[in-house]
Amino acid sequence: MTRSSPAPEPLTPNSDSRFDRQLARILEHATAIFYEKGYEGASMRDLSRLSGLSLAGLYYYFDSKERLLYLIQRHLFLSVMDLVRERLKDESDPEQRIRIFIRNHLEYFLAKPEAMKVLSHEDDVLKEELGTEISSLKRQYYRCCADLVEALKAAKGLRFNSRIAALSLFGMMNWIHTWYNPRVDGDAQAVAGEIADVFLRGIYSTETPG
Amino acid sequence: MTRSSPAPEPLTPNSDSRFDRQLARILEHATAIFYEKGYEGASMRDLSRLSGLSLAGLYYYFDSKERLLYLIQRHLFLSVMDLVRERLKDESDPEQRIRIFIRNHLEYFLAKPEAMKVLSHEDDVLKEELGTEISSLKRQYYRCCADLVEALKAAKGLRFNSRIAALSLFGMMNWIHTWYNPRVDGDAQAVAGEIADVFLRGIYSTETPG
Repeated sequence: MTRSSPAPEPLTPNSDSRFDRQLARILEHATAIFYEKGYEGASMRDLSRLSGLSLAGLYYYFDSKERLLYLIQRHLFLSVMDLVRERLKDESDPEQRIRIFIRNHLEYFLAKPEAMKVLSHEDDVLKEELGTEISSLKRQYYRCCADLVEALKAAKGLRFNSRIAALSLFGMMNWIHTWYNPRVDGDAQAVAGEIADVFLRGIYSTETPG
Repeated sequence: MTRSSPAPEPLTPNSDSRFDRQLARILEHATAIFYEKGYEGASMRDLSRLSGLSLAGLYYYFDSKERLLYLIQRHLFLSVMDLVRERLKDESDPEQRIRIFIRNHLEYFLAKPEAMKVLSHEDDVLKEELGTEISSLKRQYYRCCADLVEALKAAKGLRFNSRIAALSLFGMMNWIHTWYNPRVDGDAQAVAGEIADVFLRGIYSTETPG
């Protein structure tokens, strides 16, 4: 599936060209369509209808539905990682750093429920190069969280299975898209506080005596 | 969408009629197809091909793809609830009862990874009557877990947000289908123990002093 037409400009997060704005708009439409119909059920034709771009225009920019899903996932992982790195920069306390990670994750994804569902539902659709690149971004993001958990464990001499603890924390955070109700549960900050309390006390209580 | 042909026999879990065995087999094929293609992407034609049943025969039994998804989900919730009730019958210690719930959930769903993904991916597809009935079964199952959490909270005088705690526990358990690797993580019993430890210590540490 090679393409002879010139490649579009690279997607640079802070640039503000007309192309980037159009790309961002199309990715939003694509997220909405994947959310509503599922990735397999959505078609480029649906997306062309919703975005007002011709089918030919859509294929000119994106080649395929796979490429759209790839760009959506890539954008989400890069953005949430940029945000959390920025927020972690000035904090050195290991417990606070985990609280920042949890709060950042929930604030980011609760503001984007459609994106959250598309990420978690279509997490194994992409194959080959695109899939490998997304897996690598996801691993970086997981690693960031696991490193914070390891740092607390080392600092306080705790004992627990770090892998299962960090993955359980992602479960607590990501499952939220199935139940979150702002009127009952409060805002992202409130829920992040509750989840952080259960998680941190859960691993703290394994503290070795003395 | 009324159907003039006679309704099939009701699905009774322990009966062993030829019809029930055929139904169970078709539900397994349907689960595999939904797992592979997603609910929206799967067609009755795919299922007819896989199960060896004619398309007309399939529609005779099931009316629609919705009805198949409904029967799959209903069967899973009823089975896992029957199992956990049986296992809870002879245990009165509130902490052990939560451990039993976690272990039952993980043993049941880790043995059925395809079913687990179909349940969590297609949890809001069914509408109207079928959707209402599945929501009600799901609520019963959630309630069973939440009651166990409430019982421990009352018995030990703990303080925490029960709703967020119980839903976080479901997150820890259900997210597992995205990461579980038996060679790294051990069997369902081992993972259930780790998750139960993090969860129980997490809520225990909120014990009120005195």
